[in-house]
Amino acid sequence: RTLRIGLIPGDGIGKEVIPAGRRVLEALPAYLKLKFEFVDLKAGFEAFEQTGAALPEKTVDILKAECDGALFGAVSSPTQAVKGYSSPIVALRKKLDLYANVRPVKSVMTAVKPIDMVIVRENTEDLYVKEEKTYSGPEGKVAEAIKRISERASFRIATMAGDIAVRRQRLREEGASSIHKSPLVTVTHKSNVLSQTDGLFRAASKSALSAARFNGVTVEEQIVDSMVYKLFRQPEDYDVIVAPNLYGDILSDGAAALVGSLGLVPSANVGEGFAIGEPCHGSAPDIMGKGIANPIATLRSVALMLEFLEEPAAAAKIYAAVDANLEAGVLVTPDLGGTATTEQVVEDILNKL
Amino acid sequence: RTLRIGLIPGDGIGKEVIPAGRRVLEALPAYLKLKFEFVDLKAGFEAFEQTGAALPEKTVDILKAECDGALFGAVSSPTQAVKGYSSPIVALRKKLDLYANVRPVKSVMTAVKPIDMVIVRENTEDLYVKEEKTYSGPEGKVAEAIKRISERASFRIATMAGDIAVRRQRLREEGASSIHKSPLVTVTHKSNVLSQTDGLFRAASKSALSAARFNGVTVEEQIVDSMVYKLFRQPEDYDVIVAPNLYGDILSDGAAALVGSLGLVPSANVGEGFAIGEPCHGSAPDIMGKGIANPIATLRSVALMLEFLEEPAAAAKIYAAVDANLEAGVLVTPDLGGTATTEQVVEDILNKL
Ligand SMILES: CC(C)[C@H](C(=O)O)[C@@H](O)C(=O)O
Ligand SMILES: CC(C)[C@H](C(=O)O)[C@@H](O)C(=O)O
Repeated sequence: RTLRIGLIPGDGIGKEVIPAGRRVLEALPAYLKLKFEFVDLKAGFEAFEQTGAALPEKTVDILKAECDGALFGAVSSPTQAVKGYSSPIVALRKKLDLYANVRPVKSVMTAVKPIDMVIVRENTEDLYVKEEKTYSGPEGKVAEAIKRISERASFRIATMAGDIAVRRQRLREEGASSIHKSPLVTVTHKSNVLSQTDGLFRAASKSALSAARFNGVTVEEQIVDSMVYKLFRQPEDYDVIVAPNLYGDILSDGAAALVGSLGLVPSANVGEGFAIGEPCHGSAPDIMGKGIANPIATLRSVALMLEFLEEPAAAAKIYAAVDANLEAGVLVTPDLGGTATTEQVVEDILNKL
Repeated sequence: RTLRIGLIPGDGIGKEVIPAGRRVLEALPAYLKLKFEFVDLKAGFEAFEQTGAALPEKTVDILKAECDGALFGAVSSPTQAVKGYSSPIVALRKKLDLYANVRPVKSVMTAVKPIDMVIVRENTEDLYVKEEKTYSGPEGKVAEAIKRISERASFRIATMAGDIAVRRQRLREEGASSIHKSPLVTVTHKSNVLSQTDGLFRAASKSALSAARFNGVTVEEQIVDSMVYKLFRQPEDYDVIVAPNLYGDILSDGAAALVGSLGLVPSANVGEGFAIGEPCHGSAPDIMGKGIANPIATLRSVALMLEFLEEPAAAAKIYAAVDANLEAGVLVTPDLGGTATTEQVVEDILNKL
């Protein structure tokens, strides 16, 4: 099978880690019978300055017409509002209907407590519809934004969370090591304040998760503020967490903090038959150009993309090589207390493939 | 000076901790020349079931007409949506224009890292305006909520944050122990997605904090997801954090997690000349009636209320007695690993006053 992958490095260290993602795909062992073709695509602040568009139409068109999946690096946000600029990754998720942002957070060597969870974030609506307006009131400016929650998107994302919980449980039964014995999905919301919007998310999620095929899955719920508290106090309790877009954004970063470095945490933006791998870190202007960005978040994002493109064996290869590198703990980048360069970590992981 | 204090225990352990708050006020040493009168008021789910109103009008009227301040315990949220019920504390904050929720989080004995921060949360707007609607779309129900941010409320809350930073700095210069050397206010928002609403919060906050009297205060900003990450990774870096209502809600619980137990963390809802102390924990139905609720969050909330009622000496007395109890570490409740009852902890703290 030949997979055509769009490469969107974006800004800053995105340009240093996406090439690493390409290399790991090229280095996959031949018996997997996977071939890759790559197409370089633009997006981000630099693209905006060059072309006037943070997400050039061409990028979207090529992804839709030609690609099976993609890797997205990071984009830098301007520190002051810039007219006409808005985040390309948010637009991309919507344009390709990549309705789920999936973020597995697992501790290897780096955390005090064992953690093994996946955050499944709705990726298309909530406040991210970006419908805002500003008007002048008697006491100054007032701005409003719409938070939109639909039954359909909530049902769909909870279904994906349930499917992921079932898949993880199957892997455990096949021998994958895990701290969890049985599958759990925790639905996060704030329906004690937002009874209609978050109330709908809660109801649709519960209805989705009551499907017969989720019979063995325990379903719980947590109010978002209490979820952040528990995430920090008892992270080992959680298996799969499903949340509306904004809470999912916040929870994902909170979970990433638990495992030591954003440089370790992957994500995938997933739609029907399409997935974009995206490291959770940003463009990191402070370390850009130094060659010390941790490539692991990207390499794991490559693996995650492959999982959603139905190539679990290839994904498993990459995960195992990354884990072996981390367990050895020698060739690690400065964010983990090491002195290795991006290049050295990539070489080490390629050798372990 | 005689202060008239409304007591609103609410539900669950609210009924066990608010009496402790009353006792500490009554036990304040005579040389402080403070007298207290108390008035018992209703609110919460039990009140709703008895009277049909979660926040009886009488409660609001008496607070407005007669009281200088109040103590609020906790209310239980029904596990299923109940028609006509909505959170009384949210309503109370709006009706009394208690525009700030102030939550100091400080480590004593309980945390791995030293922490000394105050979260200043806007308390009247954002998604908490609760303007929601639901309609039927072609693919099922759709619900929308308004997130409203005003220049006025943002300016006002940032000003309070600046004032708190200056006050904390003054106390440090007078010898209060602290991990911070200079005052810092961190403005939290998500203006990379919500350029108008959170953009307005950011701009109004920065404008408020550029006032001449805040000259010595460093002002920084953090995107909310990254703020949660940093809060978990580098909590010792933060002094005062100001945030819109919902992010403030989430950050407050995250910060509370850092110091070991919600049972330690106080808050105050503050308006012009009025303050309601409120422990951060909920009604805790699991331990209700067992006499083991930690009273410290409430006792610290009493002190915080006194600070905002311009009685810093009385507040300092209570803080010191609580710290002495925690430093001894003997008479502590089960949430902190001890075996003491609420009663024993209160007695110990009264003895230390
Ligand atoms: C850059 C930003 C718009 C984005 C988001 O909020 O979705 C980021 O935080 C993420 O999680 O991918
Ligand atoms: C109970 C709930 C409505 C409330 C809030 O969200 O404000 C609580 O979480 C708090 O922080 O006081």
